[in-house]
Amino acid sequence: MATEGLTRVPFATLRKVLEQCLLLRGFDGERAARCAHIFAENSLVGVASHGLNRFPRFLEWIERGWIVPAQTPQRIASFDSLERWDGRLGPGPLNAQAGMGRAMEMAEEGGVGVLALRNTNHWMRAGTYAWQAAEAGFVGICFTNTEPNLPPWGSSQPKLGNNPVAVSIPRSNGRHVLFDGALSQFSYGTLEAAARRGEALPVPGGYTRTGELTDNPEEILESKRALPIGYWKGAGLSLALDLLATLLSAGRSTCDLGAQVAEYGVSQVFVALSGRLMDLPVLQTIERTLTNLHAASVEGKGAVRYPGERLLAIRTENLRDGVPVDEDIWKDVQSLARQ
Amino acid sequence: MATEGLTRVPFATLRKVLEQCLLLRGFDGERAARCAHIFAENSLVGVASHGLNRFPRFLEWIERGWIVPAQTPQRIASFDSLERWDGRLGPGPLNAQAGMGRAMEMAEEGGVGVLALRNTNHWMRAGTYAWQAAEAGFVGICFTNTEPNLPPWGSSQPKLGNNPVAVSIPRSNGRHVLFDGALSQFSYGTLEAAARRGEALPVPGGYTRTGELTDNPEEILESKRALPIGYWKGAGLSLALDLLATLLSAGRSTCDLGAQVAEYGVSQVFVALSGRLMDLPVLQTIERTLTNLHAASVEGKGAVRYPGERLLAIRTENLRDGVPVDEDIWKDVQSLARQ
Repeated sequence: MATEGLTRVPFATLRKVLEQCLLLRGFDGERAARCAHIFAENSLVGVASHGLNRFPRFLEWIERGWIVPAQTPQRIASFDSLERWDGRLGPGPLNAQAGMGRAMEMAEEGGVGVLALRNTNHWMRAGTYAWQAAEAGFVGICFTNTEPNLPPWGSSQPKLGNNPVAVSIPRSNGRHVLFDGALSQFSYGTLEAAARRGEALPVPGGYTRTGELTDNPEEILESKRALPIGYWKGAGLSLALDLLATLLSAGRSTCDLGAQVAEYGVSQVFVALSGRLMDLPVLQTIERTLTNLHAASVEGKGAVRYPGERLLAIRTENLRDGVPVDEDIWKDVQSLARQ
Repeated sequence: MATEGLTRVPFATLRKVLEQCLLLRGFDGERAARCAHIFAENSLVGVASHGLNRFPRFLEWIERGWIVPAQTPQRIASFDSLERWDGRLGPGPLNAQAGMGRAMEMAEEGGVGVLALRNTNHWMRAGTYAWQAAEAGFVGICFTNTEPNLPPWGSSQPKLGNNPVAVSIPRSNGRHVLFDGALSQFSYGTLEAAARRGEALPVPGGYTRTGELTDNPEEILESKRALPIGYWKGAGLSLALDLLATLLSAGRSTCDLGAQVAEYGVSQVFVALSGRLMDLPVLQTIERTLTNLHAASVEGKGAVRYPGERLLAIRTENLRDGVPVDEDIWKDVQSLARQ
């Protein structure tokens, strides 16, 4: 890996160091291993922004008491195919994994399971839990609200969350379809990285201070006016997802999160659909549709890819060659594993 | 109304003329009245593109046998909170109304109801059925697939549908939140209207023939490369919704629809969530969130609006002053009511 400031470390080493950090901060053995695995796996599949890179902040949230290592979700209301749980400020990745797990149990029985989780924490990567469902043969859908980080259409005041969403469609060969995206056109992490490299964004990503659309990441970081996907459409969709997460979980909305000193206690929704829905004709339709998509070419770049198609190849490469890590963050986290 | 080519007609007249057209084409009295009402209501709330303007094509589809007036949906599989129905090529608006109606019955019992409908037809306006749920006190979510009309990211070949989605959140004052949008940045109707007026789009809406992003509607109509919302993100979301609609309903995917001579027999999903989920604290959170949104201002234009906020005002105005109709289409439809 030629990129400056990056090095590669074995997956097992990365996971072990993260686990050690968690053991030092009140996680019991099983939960430390499971939580470290989720963070390490996010880096492994190429999403370091929600893996290693976010781990120091995760530890800081624990120190501040906004994440409580030993807390687990508790059921507070039950309808037939819908349950409402309280995450009790437990670790977001473990709460979310439990949430999708329970949604799958419900779907096993009733075809569809919906689990709404309030008072939980940042789950890192939405795709983790949709992929978890797909690995077990279920369709997985999940979304979360966030603190306000996008302005409503036409306004300069952030009032909406970027509310990441993931959808997975399982395939028996393990090459699941995985859509995983926030409702902002670019994450702040992407804007910061492009600004560091002095590069323009490939498409407009927000506004200048004077309200002009721009592809200059520095100007967007300055104005704090990032664009939702589809302009007014993404803004509307963000409100819809926030209200859905809030009303299903009886939890905090994005506006409530904005009134706090930091983002904790968010609202999330996990939906699982039974694999029994996919009989042979359905499976054939899915494969026909993906084949048809592949038949479209991207000029100069070969076939169109479906969302998530590259995930397993990246994972295999990084398992073999080591997981790319930012050298400074990696040093930082290694020292946090000793104190 | 100063706009050229538009006139206003009383809502009752509009509905009566549409009803007469349907009575002449094999609809029984009750279904003709109900279907005409849906089309007239779409024009009434300001969405003529999916009301009167699309009615001649609806009649043409009936003549071609792609819409069968007397057909009603039939249940083909049942899970606890999920049912799969076959629309048997019945009229899209009536099938969809029945679909959301049944989803609400299921939600009444189990908290959540999911009804997937295959082999149905264009429902006109997604918002109709989400609003139907909200009027009955339910949260409503629905989406449909369509024929291919958007290229996958980077490609010039249309392989994806614009797959409209609607989400409603009921409010006791009747001023429901309603997100209603397709996954294309602009509909072809909007592109055509802007091209007729010789106006640029407010933001880039697609590509030129040579693959450059453009806000020129004529160039997009020429290249047939309209943009999904959020570029690659909307493209991924379109595939996800198509596969969900297809696998839940065991119906046709966008790729299957593209292999036909016309768009008929589409796949749709209707989700209803019980109003019992919204106890007083939840209702207060929703109102607090909307108040907070209104507190953001749009420069020079007053408060930010939530999606669907203008719907009732437009409806009231058009009930009082008459529904705006395109003069040519209105003449056309009036003559179709006599033959």
